[in-house]
Amino acid sequence: MPTRLPVELSKAYRLLNHGPTVLVSSAHGDAKNVMAAAWSMPLDFSPPKIAVVIDRATRTRELVEASGEFALNIPSREMAQAALQVGSESGRDIDKFRAHGLMTFAAEKIAAPLLEGCLGWLECRVIAEPHIQNCYDLFLGEVVAAWADPRAFKGGHWSFEEGCPRSIHYIAGGNFFETGAAFEVDKM
Amino acid sequence: MPTRLPVELSKAYRLLNHGPTVLVSSAHGDAKNVMAAAWSMPLDFSPPKIAVVIDRATRTRELVEASGEFALNIPSREMAQAALQVGSESGRDIDKFRAHGLMTFAAEKIAAPLLEGCLGWLECRVIAEPHIQNCYDLFLGEVVAAWADPRAFKGGHWSFEEGCPRSIHYIAGGNFFETGAAFEVDKM
Repeated sequence: MPTRLPVELSKAYRLLNHGPTVLVSSAHGDAKNVMAAAWSMPLDFSPPKIAVVIDRATRTRELVEASGEFALNIPSREMAQAALQVGSESGRDIDKFRAHGLMTFAAEKIAAPLLEGCLGWLECRVIAEPHIQNCYDLFLGEVVAAWADPRAFKGGHWSFEEGCPRSIHYIAGGNFFETGAAFEVDKM
Repeated sequence: MPTRLPVELSKAYRLLNHGPTVLVSSAHGDAKNVMAAAWSMPLDFSPPKIAVVIDRATRTRELVEASGEFALNIPSREMAQAALQVGSESGRDIDKFRAHGLMTFAAEKIAAPLLEGCLGWLECRVIAEPHIQNCYDLFLGEVVAAWADPRAFKGGHWSFEEGCPRSIHYIAGGNFFETGAAFEVDKM
């Protein structure tokens, strides 16, 4: 089975709808970086847009502002330790990809690398809103391509069956929840 | 045990950090309403701020713009059916509180009612950013008071133990995930 398939853009919001923690990857020129972000959400369905908080002190912020692009990578539970690490270190001090053995593959529409082993990927172009970027560290992006591991997301739906890799939700201090059991409710 | 205790404002972001679906309650004059929102996130630690998408077609939007206030209520799994309902109907057509037997209690700092049976509550004042409200339906709020059910959140931490009520994460079409197992990772 392929490890990634394209996700229809009108369904891309569903990759983020349940609130997983993401890894933000970025590149500009020869420089690249990755950081963790617990604060992201969908913003619109079609064309799909997302919002994410990127602190002004980060190396990622510099690369995103310089390139106008970034990717949101949705890590599996197996990647939780790496997520914690890349959320604690600065790309100014080390090459996080090398330090943690993180493999990447090329995105289709943007220069930022995508992380191997994730469950979903959203390639984004910054929607320039300088005021909220400067005041709140809040970045808006249009999703220009999206991908998912078909073991976890297929036909526009997550399917975290027993034994399949699951997405994660950051709490604080190295603690996460994994995505739990699915359930369906009917309208009354 | 009391069903709610105050949450220290510097810890309020943790109520939303793991990405639960929320119910947005609002009031203006004699009117009140509640709707579901899958798209919300923390925006800052202290003073705590949050971001939430409130569609321009909703009755909630009118009440939030008129009052400058809203609350984010974090429903438990037991409230998933009500969450789906109040996310599917318009407060222009019916009184959703009455229609679904939703009980409320008074907030401390704002006029919007808070929903009984939820796990956490964030009382918010709109941070006026008309451009992003108009362009993206994106609202920023400062959290001015926060509360949690101590069975689920105590001392600044969620504790979804076996048998305790859990928060929920909306997918699409009446499908949710519940918040799953907690786990901790160490830095390498």
